[in-house]
Amino acid sequence: MPAATKFTLTEDRIPTHWVNLLPDLPGAPLPPLNPGTMEPAGPDDLTPIFPIELIGQEVSMEPEVEIPEPVRDVYRLWRPTPLYRAHRLERLLDTPARIYYKYEGVSPAGSHKPNSAVAQAYANKEAGIERLVTETGAGQWGSALALACSLFGLECVVYMVGASYDQKPYRRAMMESWGASVIRSPSDTTESGSSQAQHTTGSLGIAISEAVEVAASHEGTNYALGSVLNHVCLHQTVIGQEAMAQMEMAGDEPDVVVGCVGGGSNFAGMAFPFVRRVLRGEAATRFVAAEPAACPTLTRGAYRYDFGDTVGLTPLMPMFTLGHDFVPPPVHAGGLRYHGDSPMVCGLVKAGLIEPRAYRQNETFEAAIRFARTEAILPAPEPAHAIRAVLDEAEAAKQAGEERVILFNLCGHGHFDMSAYDAYLAGKLEDPEFSEADMEAALERLPDAPAIA
Amino acid sequence: MPAATKFTLTEDRIPTHWVNLLPDLPGAPLPPLNPGTMEPAGPDDLTPIFPIELIGQEVSMEPEVEIPEPVRDVYRLWRPTPLYRAHRLERLLDTPARIYYKYEGVSPAGSHKPNSAVAQAYANKEAGIERLVTETGAGQWGSALALACSLFGLECVVYMVGASYDQKPYRRAMMESWGASVIRSPSDTTESGSSQAQHTTGSLGIAISEAVEVAASHEGTNYALGSVLNHVCLHQTVIGQEAMAQMEMAGDEPDVVVGCVGGGSNFAGMAFPFVRRVLRGEAATRFVAAEPAACPTLTRGAYRYDFGDTVGLTPLMPMFTLGHDFVPPPVHAGGLRYHGDSPMVCGLVKAGLIEPRAYRQNETFEAAIRFARTEAILPAPEPAHAIRAVLDEAEAAKQAGEERVILFNLCGHGHFDMSAYDAYLAGKLEDPEFSEADMEAALERLPDAPAIA
Repeated sequence: MPAATKFTLTEDRIPTHWVNLLPDLPGAPLPPLNPGTMEPAGPDDLTPIFPIELIGQEVSMEPEVEIPEPVRDVYRLWRPTPLYRAHRLERLLDTPARIYYKYEGVSPAGSHKPNSAVAQAYANKEAGIERLVTETGAGQWGSALALACSLFGLECVVYMVGASYDQKPYRRAMMESWGASVIRSPSDTTESGSSQAQHTTGSLGIAISEAVEVAASHEGTNYALGSVLNHVCLHQTVIGQEAMAQMEMAGDEPDVVVGCVGGGSNFAGMAFPFVRRVLRGEAATRFVAAEPAACPTLTRGAYRYDFGDTVGLTPLMPMFTLGHDFVPPPVHAGGLRYHGDSPMVCGLVKAGLIEPRAYRQNETFEAAIRFARTEAILPAPEPAHAIRAVLDEAEAAKQAGEERVILFNLCGHGHFDMSAYDAYLAGKLEDPEFSEADMEAALERLPDAPAIA
Repeated sequence: MPAATKFTLTEDRIPTHWVNLLPDLPGAPLPPLNPGTMEPAGPDDLTPIFPIELIGQEVSMEPEVEIPEPVRDVYRLWRPTPLYRAHRLERLLDTPARIYYKYEGVSPAGSHKPNSAVAQAYANKEAGIERLVTETGAGQWGSALALACSLFGLECVVYMVGASYDQKPYRRAMMESWGASVIRSPSDTTESGSSQAQHTTGSLGIAISEAVEVAASHEGTNYALGSVLNHVCLHQTVIGQEAMAQMEMAGDEPDVVVGCVGGGSNFAGMAFPFVRRVLRGEAATRFVAAEPAACPTLTRGAYRYDFGDTVGLTPLMPMFTLGHDFVPPPVHAGGLRYHGDSPMVCGLVKAGLIEPRAYRQNETFEAAIRFARTEAILPAPEPAHAIRAVLDEAEAAKQAGEERVILFNLCGHGHFDMSAYDAYLAGKLEDPEFSEADMEAALERLPDAPAIA
């Protein structure tokens, strides 16, 4: 009888609260800034596009925020998600490390994104909003919001990055199946889109500008963002809380927690409940954040105030940034192609609590294939970065002869990314690096905001 | 606090035995026949392509067959699968019926198919076989066998129906990611394929002929079939056994069990444990089998001995058939486009225990969309047929003012079928009927075998 493979919680173990790390962080939080006045952005800057409930969550200093029962009710459709011990992968690697992974790909949209989409759709519905507008790159967030809106009876409009719209018609069809309208970005439906029409393949930053513009200029319409912001990271902490309970079932305690980082939400969701224990002196866990070498925000970016979007419609956020108009090479991990990152994650990197690492595209797919042929699940290109980091940790444990316990977040499946696998297996996957010259030029165009202490 | 949505079993509740319905069936089982002699096919007819362990399971009269521990160990990667109460769908339908569904789409290949693929790969590995050859239509079975072979270190070759090979490159990429070789059928790698080269888009029957030919003519190579045969239905009974335990958790008892039928394996897997209780006089459950009107085997076929493949390499099977060389219209439910059906399922239809119903393509997608927008999961086109039947049952319960308990098998997700959803939403989905003239012509070409009593 082998040790258990899968640690399953019953649905009454879905967390009742989200974990808010903000009050545990050292020092006062850095506020977002109004780009006109350079003063801290207040509710007036945000109410045109967000409901007051989410604005409250964004700045809350309560260590726990209660999850509304209708949100938990939707979570029941796929939560609690399973936690696995990767016995087969451990044998392949011949490592003394014990590897565990939380699998968020069991959600109907295929990733962790619905954890926040459902919370956001509910808060907007309660506020009397009728329509949500958002952007999507790889399609994971757009799918999640389309799903959440269908469950709460909201209209949903998704600006989809042009290159993805063309390459991923099935992601579009998925959103439409849940009733959303999907518009190719840059579009002529907004001034932001029209002003960026020369960028025919679009970018996440442009799509955000379009969505924010529509939300700000229409009554009854709000905007929803799938990562970066504090309230999105907050919603995702159901992942880490469940994982903590499941690690207890397994009788193990992680030495290192690993996740991929694009905007930071899946990483935060897994890591923050564990980070809190470290900040409170209750544990000595390490944290590793894996990002693409093609968009190396945490490893190569400047720690500065910058816009969240390309056109400059959002407040300025304190974060590692490659510059708001930097356009990363078209790697398949579309969810990681963002010029900035969650301010909370960035602050923890700056403080040395999180170790960032950058990986090339081909080495992440090589890791994904090894994972798929032992653990069976085909990972999305984004968590393939986390798997790459896990293989390195497991090898380091082997070299050191250490029983290292590794926990990572497998945040989604790759069912809509098979063309990337196809290219990898055919030896045709490109391995682009970011352009240092482009990044430096973009950094020179950073807004003239106060430096971060 | 709503009633539970999801009924979750821990992994120690994975069944230890498969349920063999054969000894409970009334009368002696109808044997397959050697087409040359018209005598019952014996082990000599089957050993060139199947291991003795599976041949034994095919004819076993033991009511339970023990599941080997290495097979259960792989099952742990996704089993037990969840059972859901469809609260949201019930509210949409405003029905007094209580609707439950078992969700097999959580397997890494996305359907119930790995339940048998893993068992077959293991039995072949134990018999010293190095390579398995199979066919696939929609790609679900090919994916499942590719996965199972990767986990047990077997080579895997998949003959993929030409039309699917061209339309579903991502299914091909999935199989290749797990290490399988995928060949477009009809191919020039076999005599069977060469003889059918005029059928450029291929058919399941032709692909079976190719795979069987390769297995029969190569030492160390066996064939694996994803449905129809008794041992495949046997392996799938983990579904119904788990569902029975989960319905007990829910405190409910199904009045009617619904599934879609192509070759019959997902239907049998869910239904047979419940059928046994009916045959033993312990319950009065009804059973509904949903099939496509474009390939109406159970509702319009002849109950006769026929080949399982197009060329005529297999033993003759007693079943409802549209004729072994009938080519159904290209509906998107590729897994239901088979001229015959499981002999065990056919016998139960003939005996009146299972009610077959045929549905048109558009009405099944309409049902799938309603399901997706309430229960969140995007169903594959095959179980969309089951959902269509469930909506009818729920409406009948409403008309009758009955608290009918409906249980169905949601055997897979539709992530690789989004082009079909896209066509449906654009109003461009065809609604083909089968050709009565083609069927009658095919039935005239049935082999000259004994009639079935």
